[in-house]
Formats: sequence, structure tokens, C-alpha cells
Amino acid sequence: MYDFSADMTDCAAAVETALGGRLSAARLSGPGPAPERLVAAMRHGSLEGGKRLRPLLVRQAAAIFNIPAASSLDAGLAVEMIHCYSLIHDDLPAMDNDDLRRGRPTVHRAYDDATAILAGDALLTHAFELLADPQCHPDAAVRIALVTELTRGAGGGGMVGGQMRDIEGEKGNLSAADIATMQAMKTGALIRASVRMGALLGGADARALSALTAYAEAAGRAFQLADDILDVTATAATLGKAAGKDAALGKQTLVATLGIEAARQHLADTVNTALSALRTFGPRADGLRATARYFASREH
Amino acid sequence: MYDFSADMTDCAAAVETALGGRLSAARLSGPGPAPERLVAAMRHGSLEGGKRLRPLLVRQAAAIFNIPAASSLDAGLAVEMIHCYSLIHDDLPAMDNDDLRRGRPTVHRAYDDATAILAGDALLTHAFELLADPQCHPDAAVRIALVTELTRGAGGGGMVGGQMRDIEGEKGNLSAADIATMQAMKTGALIRASVRMGALLGGADARALSALTAYAEAAGRAFQLADDILDVTATAATLGKAAGKDAALGKQTLVATLGIEAARQHLADTVNTALSALRTFGPRADGLRATARYFASREH
Repeated sequence: MYDFSADMTDCAAAVETALGGRLSAARLSGPGPAPERLVAAMRHGSLEGGKRLRPLLVRQAAAIFNIPAASSLDAGLAVEMIHCYSLIHDDLPAMDNDDLRRGRPTVHRAYDDATAILAGDALLTHAFELLADPQCHPDAAVRIALVTELTRGAGGGGMVGGQMRDIEGEKGNLSAADIATMQAMKTGALIRASVRMGALLGGADARALSALTAYAEAAGRAFQLADDILDVTATAATLGKAAGKDAALGKQTLVATLGIEAARQHLADTVNTALSALRTFGPRADGLRATARYFASREH
Repeated sequence: MYDFSADMTDCAAAVETALGGRLSAARLSGPGPAPERLVAAMRHGSLEGGKRLRPLLVRQAAAIFNIPAASSLDAGLAVEMIHCYSLIHDDLPAMDNDDLRRGRPTVHRAYDDATAILAGDALLTHAFELLADPQCHPDAAVRIALVTELTRGAGGGGMVGGQMRDIEGEKGNLSAADIATMQAMKTGALIRASVRMGALLGGADARALSALTAYAEAAGRAFQLADDILDVTATAATLGKAAGKDAALGKQTLVATLGIEAARQHLADTVNTALSALRTFGPRADGLRATARYFASREH
């Protein structure tokens, strides 16, 4: 019987331990020793953080193909390093100008803007070093496929492009279709890459990869919809950050466009779409099923 | 008879054409289309720029192993994209706060700080996409070796770590050894990676790779020494930018530490070290020989 809570806790602990070991001057290899201040800023921006949902998705997708959790960890770490770098850069004064993240000073507040820019750049770079290491997967062709997948999820047609669209959207009105594209890139692309990287580790055939991509795209939409609904309905106390922030920033969300009831119905439909995409996989996909339901039900 | 000037001109033209084609919304692949503003900023920060010395080094090192220029171009583009992203981020107000680069507004002046951060992030990400593409090299194991090499040159133990050390060095006194380490990382690491990536494309054995690494490390030191000497001796007119800027910024250089005459002698010795490392290679290494001499003789 699959235990979502145990899987999530175990994954988060594994990520924390592995990232903590990896982010050290001794292991960030290159012609010289990585400076302590840079390493400290990289650690500040990536340790003690979050639910590690993206490594969980890598692990759960790989589990469908009987890949043990330990064998999908490095690919999960690489996605998490990309996620963490993006938060460090997004928090900068030039972007969202946030002082706090998860109750702690953001990297540029704990250090300075230059150090935060460089720490983000280094996390982004070393994510690919991790994927290229034979420890990630014995087959170089699989490792290369992971690199390609992550660049597409993280790059100009993915996460970074979505961030750019989000900034542009603050200035003008976006249609519902524009908002959907922006969100599919900004948060959806890395969720999609996580699931597909798990599938690639497992040697998924084209049909399985296609089904898992459909799952990931729907799950990503559900994640974002739930986030937008929470921003409108939650109090600051349950959210742990200022509620109503999107509206205050003039950010365009589907909730603002559709209204709250239609958005809730759309969320339920989207979770069903994600679950339908998994119907051929049997109980080994229970992890991904639980995560899709979790995305829709989370309270913060 | 090897013609350095023709090789450099041809390489720069090939880089310009290929980067121009690659940096388009249609070719920055991902789940969504890359936004035009992001693509335009990426192009602004990487086209019409510079001598393309790093792709030239990739090409010249690969030429030792009879690899045609067209077959080493993509690896060269990847290094150049890393170099260009680093300039975009270094120019930001939080770092060097430069308004002009090569007589044109820097990316954050032509667009804004947020767009410059994202354009740099995207160039960094897509550099690895280029290396992972089968068009770069047919063998996945070679492509993975290129990814590893570039992450080490560009990451916390390489370029980004050197940039961090340089910023820290502005605040205090560095020893000659500290300066050498900083420079070996900040500019040397990517020069080293360029040469080694050319060697990896050529299937260099351990002995050849070791000799070419020795060449690259000496060439990188020569490049930096010449730069430091120029900063002291050149007029603003020949340099095309403010002379004496390092001293004004309190930047530590070996010229300040050693004095100008000792620095010139050290430069001549360093070029000889680079040339000695190539002695087993015969005329096919004339490209790398010419580049080492060029590094020491350049006037701007």
C-alpha cells in the first residue's frame, strides 16, 4: 500500500542530505577551489527548503519502471538545483524584491545582490554537472537525454521564458490563453521535465513517455490553479505569506479571469485529466496519482 | 602555411552566423515559445560581439586531431554562450555596473535588469542544450564529457567562483598567489575548458589532453597578464575603454604586485611555457601557437 506522506518525507530527507554533501568547496570541481562565500550562499538558497516536490516527481515517475529511489536521486537533485537557483534570482530586487523566503532572509538579503546572482548561476551550472556524472545513470545516452530534457524545461522555451512572460504580463492585460501559456512555462515546464526525466531514467518507450507527459502537463496546471485559488481564498496566517499578493501586484491569474467557482471546477477536471493519463500503469503509478491529488488539496 | 588572421576572421564569422540562427524563438525549444523580448536580449548580449577567442581555441585544439572547423563549431558556440552570459551578469548594477560594452548599451541598459538576469540565465541553460544535441558530436559519451568539462570551467570551481573571488578581493589585500588563483578561475577556467573541449572532440588520449591542458593554463595566464599590463600602459584611446580602471576600482592585479617590467618578463616566460607544451604536436598545432603569441601581443 503506497504511503504518500512517508514517500514525500523520505524523499525530502534524501534530497537534503545529498544536496548538503554535494554543495561543498571540495565537491564543486573546477580548476580552483570554490570560494566559501559562494558555497555558503548556494547552501543558504537550497538547503532547509521546501517540500522537494520536483525530486519527488522524478522518483515517482521512475518508480513506475522499478527504478529504486536511490537511483533517481541525482536527477531529482539537478531539477531541485534549477528550482532553487530560479527562486534566488526571482527574489532579487530587480525581479520580485522579496526579503523573506520560508521565514528566512532571501540570499541577497543574507549576503548581497552580486553573491545571489553568482550563487544562482553556480547552482544552474552544477545541476548539469550532476546529470553528466556516471553516478546519475550508467548509460551516457540516458544522461544526455536528461541534460536535453532539463535545458528545455529550464530555458527560454520553459521556466525562464515563463518568468519573462510573467514580468511582461504585469504591465498589460493577458488573455486566458496567454496566462495558460505563461504558467505552463513558468511552473509547468519544470514539473513536466521532472516527470519526463524519471521516465527517461526508467527507459520509458514512446507511448509511456507520451502518457506521462500528458500527466505532467495536467498536474502542472493543477499545481498552478491551486496556487492561484489559495492566493485569493487563504488568509495570510494559513498561507505563511501575504495573501492576495497576485492581485496587489496586478498579476494575471486564471482565477481572476474565470472567477473562483469556475476555477475550482477547472481544478477538479484537471486533476481527473492527470489521473486518466496514468490509467495503463497500475499500482506502481500510485505515487504520481497521490501527488496530483495533493497538488489540488494543499493548503499552503 | 597557417594564417592566423584568416582563421580568426573565419571563426568569428561562423560563430556570428550560427549564433544568429540558433538564438530564435523557433529554436529555443521547450514547452512554450520563448518570448521575443527574452530572445532579443539574448541576441543583444551575444551577437556582433568580440573576437570569439574561445570558439577559436576549441577549433584550433580540435584541428590538431584533424577535426574540421564545422565539426567543432557547436562546442565553440556553447563556450561562447557561457562567456556572453557572464558578461551580461557582470555588467549588472549589482556587479560592475557598466553602461557600455563594445560601444553599445549593455543588456540591462538596453532592456532592464530583470531581462538581463533572465537573458543570462537562458544563455547559460541553452549552452548545455547545444552540447547535448547529436549535431555537436555523434557519440553521446563525448557529448557528456563536453558537458562535464564546461560545467567545471564555468561553475563554482571555475569562472563563477573566480568572479566571486574578484569581488571579495576588491575589499581587501590579496597575495600574489591569491590573485593567480582568482585569475586562473575567472578567465583561465573557460580558456582551459575551450582547449580541452577541442581535445575531447578529437578523441585526445590522456597524454595529449595533459599537454593541451598545460598549454591552456599557460595561455590563460598570458591572456590575463597582457590584459593587466594593458590596463596600466595603454591610453584610453587605444584601449577603447577607460584605462587604469583596475587601479581605480582597487582591483588587485599581478602587475600592481610585481611591477611592470617584471610582469612583462613573466608574460614572455608564460608564452614560452604555453609553446613548450605543444612541442610534440607538429604543424597542426600552429593555430594554438599563434593564439598564444597573439594573447601576449594584443593592443586592445
